[in-house]
Amino acid sequence: MIETQDLVSFFLETRQHTENICKPLEIEDYVVQPIVDVSPPKWHLGHTTWFFEEFILKPHKPGYELFHEDFAFVFNSYYENVGKRVIRNDRGNLSRPGVAKVYDYRHYVTDELSTFLASEITPEVEELLIIGIHHEKQHQELLITDIKYILGNNPLLPRYNDSFSENPVQRFNLEWITMTEGIYGIGHNDPEAFCFDNELGNHKVYLQEYQISNKLITNGEYLSFINSGGYQDFNLWHAEGWDWIQQNKITQPMYWHQVDKEWYLYTLQGLQKIDKEAPVSHISYFEAYAFAQWKECRLPTEFEWEAAQSRFNWGSRWEWTESAYLPYPGYAKAPGAIGEYNGKFMVNQKVLRGGSIATPAKHTRHTYRNFFQTNLRWQFTGLRLAK
Amino acid sequence: MIETQDLVSFFLETRQHTENICKPLEIEDYVVQPIVDVSPPKWHLGHTTWFFEEFILKPHKPGYELFHEDFAFVFNSYYENVGKRVIRNDRGNLSRPGVAKVYDYRHYVTDELSTFLASEITPEVEELLIIGIHHEKQHQELLITDIKYILGNNPLLPRYNDSFSENPVQRFNLEWITMTEGIYGIGHNDPEAFCFDNELGNHKVYLQEYQISNKLITNGEYLSFINSGGYQDFNLWHAEGWDWIQQNKITQPMYWHQVDKEWYLYTLQGLQKIDKEAPVSHISYFEAYAFAQWKECRLPTEFEWEAAQSRFNWGSRWEWTESAYLPYPGYAKAPGAIGEYNGKFMVNQKVLRGGSIATPAKHTRHTYRNFFQTNLRWQFTGLRLAK
Amino acid sequence: MIETQDLVSFFLETRQHTENICKPLEIEDYVVQPIVDVSPPKWHLGHTTWFFEEFILKPHKPGYELFHEDFAFVFNSYYENVGKRVIRNDRGNLSRPGVAKVYDYRHYVTDELSTFLASEITPEVEELLIIGIHHEKQHQELLITDIKYILGNNPLLPRYNDSFSENPVQRFNLEWITMTEGIYGIGHNDPEAFCFDNELGNHKVYLQEYQISNKLITNGEYLSFINSGGYQDFNLWHAEGWDWIQQNKITQPMYWHQVDKEWYLYTLQGLQKIDKEAPVSHISYFEAYAFAQWKECRLPTEFEWEAAQSRFNWGSRWEWTESAYLPYPGYAKAPGAIGEYNGKFMVNQKVLRGGSIATPAKHTRHTYRNFFQTNLRWQFTGLRLAK
Amino acid sequence: MIETQDLVSFFLETRQHTENICKPLEIEDYVVQPIVDVSPPKWHLGHTTWFFEEFILKPHKPGYELFHEDFAFVFNSYYENVGKRVIRNDRGNLSRPGVAKVYDYRHYVTDELSTFLASEITPEVEELLIIGIHHEKQHQELLITDIKYILGNNPLLPRYNDSFSENPVQRFNLEWITMTEGIYGIGHNDPEAFCFDNELGNHKVYLQEYQISNKLITNGEYLSFINSGGYQDFNLWHAEGWDWIQQNKITQPMYWHQVDKEWYLYTLQGLQKIDKEAPVSHISYFEAYAFAQWKECRLPTEFEWEAAQSRFNWGSRWEWTESAYLPYPGYAKAPGAIGEYNGKFMVNQKVLRGGSIATPAKHTRHTYRNFFQTNLRWQFTGLRLAK
Repeated sequence: MIETQDLVSFFLETRQHTENICKPLEIEDYVVQPIVDVSPPKWHLGHTTWFFEEFILKPHKPGYELFHEDFAFVFNSYYENVGKRVIRNDRGNLSRPGVAKVYDYRHYVTDELSTFLASEITPEVEELLIIGIHHEKQHQELLITDIKYILGNNPLLPRYNDSFSENPVQRFNLEWITMTEGIYGIGHNDPEAFCFDNELGNHKVYLQEYQISNKLITNGEYLSFINSGGYQDFNLWHAEGWDWIQQNKITQPMYWHQVDKEWYLYTLQGLQKIDKEAPVSHISYFEAYAFAQWKECRLPTEFEWEAAQSRFNWGSRWEWTESAYLPYPGYAKAPGAIGEYNGKFMVNQKVLRGGSIATPAKHTRHTYRNFFQTNLRWQFTGLRLAK
Repeated sequence: MIETQDLVSFFLETRQHTENICKPLEIEDYVVQPIVDVSPPKWHLGHTTWFFEEFILKPHKPGYELFHEDFAFVFNSYYENVGKRVIRNDRGNLSRPGVAKVYDYRHYVTDELSTFLASEITPEVEELLIIGIHHEKQHQELLITDIKYILGNNPLLPRYNDSFSENPVQRFNLEWITMTEGIYGIGHNDPEAFCFDNELGNHKVYLQEYQISNKLITNGEYLSFINSGGYQDFNLWHAEGWDWIQQNKITQPMYWHQVDKEWYLYTLQGLQKIDKEAPVSHISYFEAYAFAQWKECRLPTEFEWEAAQSRFNWGSRWEWTESAYLPYPGYAKAPGAIGEYNGKFMVNQKVLRGGSIATPAKHTRHTYRNFFQTNLRWQFTGLRLAK
Repeated sequence: MIETQDLVSFFLETRQHTENICKPLEIEDYVVQPIVDVSPPKWHLGHTTWFFEEFILKPHKPGYELFHEDFAFVFNSYYENVGKRVIRNDRGNLSRPGVAKVYDYRHYVTDELSTFLASEITPEVEELLIIGIHHEKQHQELLITDIKYILGNNPLLPRYNDSFSENPVQRFNLEWITMTEGIYGIGHNDPEAFCFDNELGNHKVYLQEYQISNKLITNGEYLSFINSGGYQDFNLWHAEGWDWIQQNKITQPMYWHQVDKEWYLYTLQGLQKIDKEAPVSHISYFEAYAFAQWKECRLPTEFEWEAAQSRFNWGSRWEWTESAYLPYPGYAKAPGAIGEYNGKFMVNQKVLRGGSIATPAKHTRHTYRNFFQTNLRWQFTGLRLAK
Repeated sequence: MIETQDLVSFFLETRQHTENICKPLEIEDYVVQPIVDVSPPKWHLGHTTWFFEEFILKPHKPGYELFHEDFAFVFNSYYENVGKRVIRNDRGNLSRPGVAKVYDYRHYVTDELSTFLASEITPEVEELLIIGIHHEKQHQELLITDIKYILGNNPLLPRYNDSFSENPVQRFNLEWITMTEGIYGIGHNDPEAFCFDNELGNHKVYLQEYQISNKLITNGEYLSFINSGGYQDFNLWHAEGWDWIQQNKITQPMYWHQVDKEWYLYTLQGLQKIDKEAPVSHISYFEAYAFAQWKECRLPTEFEWEAAQSRFNWGSRWEWTESAYLPYPGYAKAPGAIGEYNGKFMVNQKVLRGGSIATPAKHTRHTYRNFFQTNLRWQFTGLRLAK
């Protein structure tokens, strides 16, 4: 168990880190929402604040006064249990509250919560606080990827931060790790440590013998797939994936640009020549699957990934798995709004395992289950093969 | 192994049965396509015929002459490997070829194939023939459900056939069957018997202890869900399911009509008062899931269903499971067009197990895996609970 | 004034002529609706019948019994005043009532009305009867163009009728008719003769001097426009027209097919080589305007057309004009459902003048105002230049 | 003719006035685009600047250096002749160039042009300069109405400027002005004064006798229309208008809010109680037409309006007319990009006459022709009746 004092530090550091991420932004960058999946940075700042206000301060701190009575409407994301909200694709239409006002809101709530934490808090509040911190850490990752989308789809291709290197090279050789057939334990198993509810229900899974690669697929390998006509051969694709690339005229990962027959990637450091040794990124599940088909391999299931993960390095890319996002045996969602956190998304999405260059420190772990729809690409998503 | 003579009989009976299903139709009923998922009956007649022509007669029968060179274009469904095809949602725009011509096509191909089968055939042709027969049986089920949709969405609500009873009553008491924790064998395991490729790869699965109901949910139970506000409580639904019922204003299963506060169902025998003891039908996965949530239970996985199936009756409703439609370990799709049969649909769909009142005799089996998108309702889909 | 006996003959001939148009059809051709603007032939048969039943027999014939109480719902087109109706783009989803039943309905209403007309009828009924007959004549034209669409968009390209020649050659030289500046009378001016309400309000219009061509633009001239890059030069197009050709990838008139560098047209006699002397047809207003821009001319206004029409031949193509479809001075719509006939369409449409090869005999006249949205092409629409 | 010195002053005043309009904004307000018709204020600032750069400085000033080579791409609106451009509905997705940079761009171009104007300029440049100034004045009006939309659709309903009163009361009695039948001159007729090309071609029009109101319709009168069920009676509407209010659930003008049975309007001074004497505003053509039908009157044509305009006050609302936006006789568009200014929009739009509270001083005149699609409401649009 974390000591309260450590928890307060953890809270304050997290709050500060979110603001640090936004330091390189101009005010205008905080406002826009170029696609529905990307939220304006000021919305992230407000929403993570609202979470603490709505679930801790409002119900638990005696005499707490809301910063502004309309902000719940503005900054609620998808919690149907706590009332009406701005439709998700309208977030980029709101110029007000302005950035300065949103920071006022952040600081007000941070201060109010700090004061509150100085008093004796109940285990329930402590649990909510921990969820709120991890919730904000999730939004830190989204902030980075949303900022990348906002800048990387601007025709001027502005840089975010010269020191943010997103393409680590894997300086080791490819090996196929063989895992023997048998029963494996899956799911979170440490009652002292935090996890999200979708990781709970440690249980046994029977796996057939399989092999899994110790390396992520690189840009160079992916380029071979492109050059060999991978995007033109329907036999490699799911029917739904094929329709998707046709309709959206997709012929390469997001952020790839071909200029004078040379390939470039937009990165948070600006446009760069492709690094063939770095792991590929910003591909959809459909593309990961088609690549694996082309290699006559497959994607690992999330169970295969978890059973083998101690034997390879991971953490620079979220890795698509073949597993659909489903509840573990015995999964039960919490009552009320907090229960909306995970359970209601457990359909028509795929599990990703690992973590990415954008994931905040100590946020992910080997049982962590990320999940997205099969066509999304704005995260740092890559792939690892199995067979 | 089936004897060739039996195979010819099996082929001829199947061909005849398809035509028997269409006997009660007027010519106009053969033509329309009210929604994209429903094909015109004459298209089913032609498509099942084209399958035999394209995959057996054309490549294997020496000197075979196509009935009509444009019919491949008209009657191909989704096989990208065999050329262009009429877009799926344009099938109902084609008045020609007319019904009489389509029957000519059927009889021509049936005769040509019968003649061909009288000669010595290779194992490859035999295998294709068996696939073609089972393919046609699948379309027999679709024919019935598509006809139901065509007639049941016509404002005149015409009957199909007075003798087609679709609502069997389950005259036995509810029991919860307990299955012990452990390893179970899943998948097809009889090399002598036919199965589709998605059932292959008999493998072990570890299941936690669970209970599964011996009864399907009835219309009466489902009515209680409606009356208790199930369609208005977002906590019971997936986020995607909730959006779907809101956008489509869905408040009851397909074919339910409320007239003067009394509930009626459109059936193939025409409009009938609801039978509260009959199993509910024509619900989407989203509705099945929400119902299970409301009951504080869940849907079984396809593995739980298969492991327990010998202990309950099944076969009147396709049963939604919690399992996503994914390949079994070791799944490999066949090369070429036949390989498009199943594999390319293995994403964003749910598995259904069992069979329905519309499934032709001896077509389904306990390893059979049906699959649909989560919002589809025009099949005879129901549910069974687990916990 | 028409004698009653002549009116009865006129009625019966019109009813018969509609059925004659359908003689070459197969039953399946009566059912389909490939695009929303095209109605199934059996719907036309039923709708023209319903018009007589709804507006004459039901309110005026004592003791009249409806043929079927649901047919008003099925066959009402757009009259909001007379209750609910099948949504326009669902007409092709209805297999029932079948074709035989629709003919029964027609004959029942024709007989009932004939009997009724043998009695003394009021001027009001006479007026409704005349409107009903002209309404049916309008649908005769639509029947032909809808049949052309249904057959001409079928991949088998079946013929309608070998004797229906749709491409008359203009065997005379081009002349520019000069009209002097001044006041011209516009609109219907013969109280004895029938016209629609949108032609009424004979009034004066001041025209500047202009010239108008005595010839329609030919396929050959239009081909020069295509070959000179007319569909690729945005300067020739309205912004809305340019968007429309981009989005719909339009590069030629409807029914034009290029096979081995040779141009063919689908006609009601089947596919034919293009006749360069015949007037172009099946073009939208956007295309007519762009062609005129390319020729450094313009389309005439409907007033210019009407003022000059006695000096040239017309009647094989509906001719797009530059005039928006607006009410004449003093226009007043009739009360009730009959008033919905024209007035409510007087926005965002263009006037066409003349008549076409598909217009029934004696139906059009020099004051007749046809009208369509600017993107529609399934009518026999052509153009004549002015400057 | 304007003296060059006066022209320079006119230019500088106009540039300054645009920036004055933006003074009350926060930086965030410059960025968003809540609907496609509304552009971000910073886009207006850049686009009006780009116009001077693209059409004057670049081709005419020797040695001129572009401020930034990508700004033509960012700030071109719809001129196909001058290259690619940001798609109109993506303008609100661009955070860069930031507001400060856009002001730098403005000042750079203003200064460069001022210097250039100090030299001897050709008549061609003078003409382009005048067009550019009037173009910027048009955008001044759009800036105000776009700002109103951005703030008025924000849930916090922030004010723009307390001194901007938009609802002048008409303190005089209703009179019907009678205009006699005959020939009237229409169109711009002063070669010394500026006008847009769509006003040129002074010509004669024959008008029948008519009456036109000296007053605009008020909020109070419009409220009676609402209260008498005007939005529920389809007989008052065009078919297209009826579909539009059904689909968009429209039951009142834009910016009207009913709170506790009291009606409020959002204005640039914030939310205010409705003023029943002020002229109604923010209605579409469809609503103007339906209101006129309800009053058993009609809208005037643009010719009737122009012929009578000296006999009534106008200028606080743009007034919908019954006239479609069409070229005057002899209209010819200029060659090249400048020719795209007006001509390519002359289809499926309606003419508005007058001017509005947002129109900059001396910008409109009695021959000025504004035009919008029939469903647009974000301008200060009202109506005046004729009969």
